[in-house]
Amino acid sequence: MKEKEFISTIKQILNSEYIGDDCAFLKDLGIVVTQDSLVEDVHFKKDFITPYQLGYKSIMVNLSDISASGAEPKYITISLSLPSDIENNFVEQFYQGCKTACPEDVEIVGGDITSADKIYISVCAIGKTENRNISSRKNAKIGQKVVVSGINGSSGAGLELLLKGETKPEKFIKSHLEPQAQIEFGKYLGENIKEPYAAMDTSDGLMDALSTIANDSGVLLDINFDKIPYDKDIEYFDDWQNLVLFGGEDYQIIATVPQNINIGTTIGEVKQGLGVNLKIGNKEIFYDKKTVENNIYKHFK
Amino acid sequence: MKEKEFISTIKQILNSEYIGDDCAFLKDLGIVVTQDSLVEDVHFKKDFITPYQLGYKSIMVNLSDISASGAEPKYITISLSLPSDIENNFVEQFYQGCKTACPEDVEIVGGDITSADKIYISVCAIGKTENRNISSRKNAKIGQKVVVSGINGSSGAGLELLLKGETKPEKFIKSHLEPQAQIEFGKYLGENIKEPYAAMDTSDGLMDALSTIANDSGVLLDINFDKIPYDKDIEYFDDWQNLVLFGGEDYQIIATVPQNINIGTTIGEVKQGLGVNLKIGNKEIFYDKKTVENNIYKHFK
Repeated sequence: MKEKEFISTIKQILNSEYIGDDCAFLKDLGIVVTQDSLVEDVHFKKDFITPYQLGYKSIMVNLSDISASGAEPKYITISLSLPSDIENNFVEQFYQGCKTACPEDVEIVGGDITSADKIYISVCAIGKTENRNISSRKNAKIGQKVVVSGINGSSGAGLELLLKGETKPEKFIKSHLEPQAQIEFGKYLGENIKEPYAAMDTSDGLMDALSTIANDSGVLLDINFDKIPYDKDIEYFDDWQNLVLFGGEDYQIIATVPQNINIGTTIGEVKQGLGVNLKIGNKEIFYDKKTVENNIYKHFK
Repeated sequence: MKEKEFISTIKQILNSEYIGDDCAFLKDLGIVVTQDSLVEDVHFKKDFITPYQLGYKSIMVNLSDISASGAEPKYITISLSLPSDIENNFVEQFYQGCKTACPEDVEIVGGDITSADKIYISVCAIGKTENRNISSRKNAKIGQKVVVSGINGSSGAGLELLLKGETKPEKFIKSHLEPQAQIEFGKYLGENIKEPYAAMDTSDGLMDALSTIANDSGVLLDINFDKIPYDKDIEYFDDWQNLVLFGGEDYQIIATVPQNINIGTTIGEVKQGLGVNLKIGNKEIFYDKKTVENNIYKHFK
């Protein structure tokens, strides 16, 4: 799947200022909107995730995008396509998961349900931008610092365990199946930053978010691996550094913020240049756009 | 696919005032939102429709829902999932079709693209409600008349031709593959009706729209078949009356409006009772909710 190529084709045809960020900021309506899909055997396998968890995760994935924009998540619509031999209680369990994932002031207001050969879920989320400063991937400015909302790599570690048929440590598996959108972190950014800032969630991995912000903003992000927060138990995995950097679906928020903003963990600085520079132990590794894209998290396909 | 059963389960879990109409009316944001999916081999077959037409239709289907609400269509997001062996120019052709389907003041602002075994399309559309009176299926009132925006049955006739491998008359096939959302009709309703009114598009057939409005509003719609507009050439089909009544995807708008509103074709009256009463020749046939649901348009599955 040449996702990045297709996106560039789409950008060319639509020639729209909106395409690029995870959320489109519709200023005239005072909202942001995002839409994200979960496809069976691409983003999830039925054997690994319960219908409840699938509903829960579908919502969180979209709340995460809204949160990274700095907006206030408000409304959700859900398209659900199901095979005819689906378990009887699938719809009920799925929607219970969806409902649980919604904070009190977020409401599921519509969508549709159709048949299909496999399970296909597409969720649209709408956020309110009133009194919020909305982020863009293009907004990183030299002199800002790079912060991340929480720990990285746990979801990728969980997926690795699931693929090996292992069930422990459960915390990693839970990170993968029941991710948490960083709604409070996004709220803090949107309400407290008074200048343009960049933010993006780590749905496709920490390094993907860093590289996208760097390249879309035309800056260098100078990152110190030792500062990146992760669960120490991940070091038992052979490829743990790779999981921290490239494992996807942690749904943390990466942001470039003014020095006086105190939230999350500071992992680097915005500097002159283009791309991501990673200090790791005594080494320095430079990642250009292409290198990161080639290493990007691929789910199941 | 027990769509109606699933919807009732979902309604029960969510216990939301919004679920029921094709669009959710989000009063605090001044918008309506709708989401509709097209699934390969359920809603379309690749052999019958070009990528361009598929993009075009995906947009029209959603603009139709916005139009039936009385709101002004403004923004679109698109989730597109594609098999890895998809033709090279599919994405370009699909998006060209999407773009062509959008009126000048409607913009495609986001979405995502993923892989899948078959083609899945889910489109979300947002409409602006400022200075518009928004419809609801529950709003039909005794004394209103029933109007329809245009001709019925042509899309179903086109599908019948496609399934038989025929290519003529082309106009029916075009009705099926390149439907037109009734944007101007919806605008007229939203801007000119000053009381509550019911409206719905005929995506699942004329009779489905009539029956849904009747049952959701708790009224009887007294319909005269002879008044229903259709293309005279449809009479060459053996089951032409069935196509007019139950053929789906014409994307006309059915509305119950005050007597002084002059738009579309008047096909009946709102009366006391529950369900749809159809005068056809010398006969009168009463359709309760269940009878209509059992006859509903099923696409390919």
